[in-house]
Amino acid sequence: MAVFSKVVGVAAAALVSAVSAQSFQRLGTCPTLGCVFPPDQADFLAGQYFDIRLEVHAPQNGSEAIGLPADEAFTFTIAKGDGEAKPVTDFFGVEDAKLENWTFTYFEDYFARDAKTPSLVDVRSKAYRRLALYEPGEYTATLNYNNGSSTKATWLVRDLAEERKAKNIILFIGDGMTTNMITAARLIGHKTINGKYQTRMQMDKFPVLGHQMTHSIDSFITDSANSASALYTGHKSSVNALGVYADSSKDPFDDPKVETIAEIFHRLTGGHVGIVSTAFLADATPAGLTAHTRARSEYGAVVDSFLNGITNYTWTEWDGPDVLFGGGAEQFYSPELGGVTYQNKTYYDEFAKKGYQVLQNRTALLAAPSNEKALGVFTYSNMAKWLDRNVYRENLNQSLSPTGDKTAALDQPGLKDMTLKAIDILSERSGDKGFFLMSEAASIDKMMHVLDYDRALGELLELDDTIKATVNKLNETGCLEETLILVTADHGHGFDVMGSVDTKYLAAQDDQRKKRNAIGTYQNSGLSQYQSTGNLTYVDSNFPRNWDPRYTLFSGLTANPDHRENYTVHKDGPREPAVELEEDSDDYYVNPEDAENGIEINGNLPVSNDQGVHSLTDVPVFAMGPCQDKFSGVYNSIDIFFSMAECFGLARGRATNGTGYSTGN
Amino acid sequence: MAVFSKVVGVAAAALVSAVSAQSFQRLGTCPTLGCVFPPDQADFLAGQYFDIRLEVHAPQNGSEAIGLPADEAFTFTIAKGDGEAKPVTDFFGVEDAKLENWTFTYFEDYFARDAKTPSLVDVRSKAYRRLALYEPGEYTATLNYNNGSSTKATWLVRDLAEERKAKNIILFIGDGMTTNMITAARLIGHKTINGKYQTRMQMDKFPVLGHQMTHSIDSFITDSANSASALYTGHKSSVNALGVYADSSKDPFDDPKVETIAEIFHRLTGGHVGIVSTAFLADATPAGLTAHTRARSEYGAVVDSFLNGITNYTWTEWDGPDVLFGGGAEQFYSPELGGVTYQNKTYYDEFAKKGYQVLQNRTALLAAPSNEKALGVFTYSNMAKWLDRNVYRENLNQSLSPTGDKTAALDQPGLKDMTLKAIDILSERSGDKGFFLMSEAASIDKMMHVLDYDRALGELLELDDTIKATVNKLNETGCLEETLILVTADHGHGFDVMGSVDTKYLAAQDDQRKKRNAIGTYQNSGLSQYQSTGNLTYVDSNFPRNWDPRYTLFSGLTANPDHRENYTVHKDGPREPAVELEEDSDDYYVNPEDAENGIEINGNLPVSNDQGVHSLTDVPVFAMGPCQDKFSGVYNSIDIFFSMAECFGLARGRATNGTGYSTGN
Repeated sequence: MAVFSKVVGVAAAALVSAVSAQSFQRLGTCPTLGCVFPPDQADFLAGQYFDIRLEVHAPQNGSEAIGLPADEAFTFTIAKGDGEAKPVTDFFGVEDAKLENWTFTYFEDYFARDAKTPSLVDVRSKAYRRLALYEPGEYTATLNYNNGSSTKATWLVRDLAEERKAKNIILFIGDGMTTNMITAARLIGHKTINGKYQTRMQMDKFPVLGHQMTHSIDSFITDSANSASALYTGHKSSVNALGVYADSSKDPFDDPKVETIAEIFHRLTGGHVGIVSTAFLADATPAGLTAHTRARSEYGAVVDSFLNGITNYTWTEWDGPDVLFGGGAEQFYSPELGGVTYQNKTYYDEFAKKGYQVLQNRTALLAAPSNEKALGVFTYSNMAKWLDRNVYRENLNQSLSPTGDKTAALDQPGLKDMTLKAIDILSERSGDKGFFLMSEAASIDKMMHVLDYDRALGELLELDDTIKATVNKLNETGCLEETLILVTADHGHGFDVMGSVDTKYLAAQDDQRKKRNAIGTYQNSGLSQYQSTGNLTYVDSNFPRNWDPRYTLFSGLTANPDHRENYTVHKDGPREPAVELEEDSDDYYVNPEDAENGIEINGNLPVSNDQGVHSLTDVPVFAMGPCQDKFSGVYNSIDIFFSMAECFGLARGRATNGTGYSTGN
Repeated sequence: MAVFSKVVGVAAAALVSAVSAQSFQRLGTCPTLGCVFPPDQADFLAGQYFDIRLEVHAPQNGSEAIGLPADEAFTFTIAKGDGEAKPVTDFFGVEDAKLENWTFTYFEDYFARDAKTPSLVDVRSKAYRRLALYEPGEYTATLNYNNGSSTKATWLVRDLAEERKAKNIILFIGDGMTTNMITAARLIGHKTINGKYQTRMQMDKFPVLGHQMTHSIDSFITDSANSASALYTGHKSSVNALGVYADSSKDPFDDPKVETIAEIFHRLTGGHVGIVSTAFLADATPAGLTAHTRARSEYGAVVDSFLNGITNYTWTEWDGPDVLFGGGAEQFYSPELGGVTYQNKTYYDEFAKKGYQVLQNRTALLAAPSNEKALGVFTYSNMAKWLDRNVYRENLNQSLSPTGDKTAALDQPGLKDMTLKAIDILSERSGDKGFFLMSEAASIDKMMHVLDYDRALGELLELDDTIKATVNKLNETGCLEETLILVTADHGHGFDVMGSVDTKYLAAQDDQRKKRNAIGTYQNSGLSQYQSTGNLTYVDSNFPRNWDPRYTLFSGLTANPDHRENYTVHKDGPREPAVELEEDSDDYYVNPEDAENGIEINGNLPVSNDQGVHSLTDVPVFAMGPCQDKFSGVYNSIDIFFSMAECFGLARGRATNGTGYSTGN
């Protein structure tokens, strides 16, 4: 068969490692026993600061066992293009680094985990800090070890124009937001007549659309830390890592760093930076702009990095953003009130000492002057959801005040309030220098995790409402044409809508299989009742007129814990779909108090999951403003960093600031 | 609260019909008792042929009962802009239509269906055939009935340039293809090193990206018939309708028609048309180009329409496509051999009589001359899947020969073979007139329906391979710059990938809950083993090296029948996830022979479903060539028709062909 002849059997596939880099890995990006960070295939902005970490591994047992102490006589060279390979110390003109050593263990697969038979690895390592490559082109970094083995890494310094095209960049991140979710939000927030929408989402009005691939460097599913790092630094990394490549050492603060867009923009241009999120501020997406740690859970240190930058190693200069708005008071208020802070400091005081006004509710936010730096922390942890702030307000009655005084945080701003105030402050304070603002709708992700589709879509509509208000504001102030606005996400959840549910019919059936007949697909999906019934309306904003119609959306996720669905809005606050029957059993079943009278659906996720997980899908990028065409088509997440950097003109073909770091030439 | 004050209670919502147009509708797009087709909000290409259907309804029982015979004294007027409303006969210069009447029944909701209490509706109706509007602008169509009631429809003739910008258009449709599926196909078909793909999908190289909204006119979930109609005619319609608005009459062939891009292009320019699909040819996506019926299941009539166009009413001239390639021999071969054909004709003979070469296998296809029209029918129904044609070939051993002789259809071409031959024939035969080719990868959808993710992704990779070969071919023949290439879909399925599965570990567990621990999410998803193991390779094409690795994808759908997942490739042919325990019970359970040793997952779909269903998500549009920028951003599915028509310069501001139809001026 001619068609079949195209299938060519290859005699022997290239050597496949016994350890297949799947469920567990000895160390991400390091399939051989010599590890180079930044690894093979890394791209750099010309002049971007980074650290180098080298590791030589000696597995002591398991399938890769070599049984020796790790080689400490390794050498490392760098060559530019076809040029001579020079020792790293010569290449960068730096002192040699001190030799480090440690051990770590890992499991080769789930069988080994069950059998409790970890593999032990002995390590020798060196690290070189705060380097930069300036000249565009390819570099070859080579680690020689074990008397003849070598690991080569090809690095590329991209050749980008240095001319600045945008004064400002506003990067909106809908955490976990997919095209599927946007489609669903449009359906409940906007009205159609005979298949034609009568109003449009602001995102849908953006002229340029792209898709970005979100995968990690060493796993195809990412978390928000790693994907934030890719967006902000142009370097993909591993799950849980912020602004570093993850090494194998125990110290979460010694991993090799890469400089972020906020750091570079501020260092090179003196531009001003704003950070806004509806998450607790130490969460990954805001954290990624200034933190450098392989452990996103180091929340206290993250908050310190916002204010003071990186202090444990020589690094880029940083003196705090102009604006830092979000939740997460736990990392700010005094340990005496229950705060869990870095070095037991009270970060409200630390920020105030450096000239920040400290805002703790929406009223203060709206009244705040625009000429002072501002810290706004509005609740204990993640901020209240749009649906609770606007429709089911009784859910705000919890002891979540940002002051730590255990009162309720009733007067919380929304993403729109925070973003518009951030633009006021950044515009006034940055003058000709321009600003970079990241504004995150964090709880699209957080509510999808707990299968609370209504709250997630409410957050998405609030994001769209915020973008609309931003475009209008910039238009009124004459700044629209000098500002690049991007809207994107950091990863997906496998969410979609497949029809409608007659909730009245579902509730009236007493048989699990009959309940499923309440679901209408195709022609029986009908029209969205979120717009055609109900009496909620909003000035200049598009949200459902009715969150609790008889006919709701038949929606769901592709990966679930055990759960139950009655397809009605959760009026009592965010869902908790699964619970442990026995404490600390790590074995989750349907929450008997969730979605009563619903359809029980057994999960497909490991039973230790009480919520859904991230998914693979490419996520959309909407672009408007200078350089918008750079964001058209399909590309890697790191390309967003490079296109933003190019739009700001941040590439530097030669070292100019005289701080004495090496040039790489 | 200032934020809360934006929620304005509206005294009384606009009158909400007692029948809420949800699970069932009296008639789609007709919430009142007077129905106008084309309905309110319809857009038209200037000069596009269409029919008008008017209906007046008199419900005899149920919540809308008025208990009278339907009004037959209704009148209908049309006004251009602010101009005078003229009777339809004056406006178009046509004879009045004869009055028709009929009755139909429907259920108001699922309770009424269970109780078997349908509502009966009496109808009076008229239809006006083959009209056109030329002058761009708004028109108001008004149906007056029931002595004072009226239904108004606003129609818009879009103001489009008449200048032709593309010689050819090739429209690739990945049926049911979403961004999520493209991401998954990329993961298994292309290799990454440290987070950077070493090869690219052809789609990913297209410069312009858009999203199209796929919803039906009267339900938010579409089928392929209705969405094909939207893409081809610029008019959204109802589920199961092809090239018509669905009326309430019993006759599936008398519904009001709208002219398709193929028909208009051929009528106005003499351009040539090609139709290629891996489905049976009478299936919705190929059928939509020439068929006009509210019942997509009228397969025999669809095949006749390919050859003869519409013959039961005066309609556009049509004399068959140059190329018609796909499956579905059942509608072509003699009824004596078991064919189920229109008027019991043998359509191989009918096509041959009109000068078509008839091709029935890949060998004949490749050898066929390019200067003759060609019908190629390669198997009984849907064509074999890429995975079965290329990897698991023993599955082809079934009695599916396109000749009807019950032998096996072993020598089937793929989408690439068919598409490249279609381009050869169209290029040679069309000369300066140019061509329109629709090429469909149909079984992305068909395999997603049956939860056979591997086969679906194989079809998607074959589509991408076909697009790549098409771009290369057009480049070689110098036709790339004069050809607009579009790649899109017609709807989605709620599919995504959430991690990996250690299939060895899963199979080794004997407990359902322990099996779930074989699933790796986030960092435990690891790298794609479809490229890093195995020995399958392909010349110039990207497919998995290994379809059956130990670590597979943890993927799934958001809506399912009862089913079981072991996350391994189905070597014995396409999946059948659910079966009836009792024949004709319409009650489907896990197929005991499917995915043995897998995790059992109870479905969320009505138990009468043996497979998955379509979903809401916007689908991607990739564009390259003349007019590519028209396809950037987010828009309605119908906009693809209008942009293609504009790129071909098909708008006609005035009637010119002297056939006597009305001008609407």
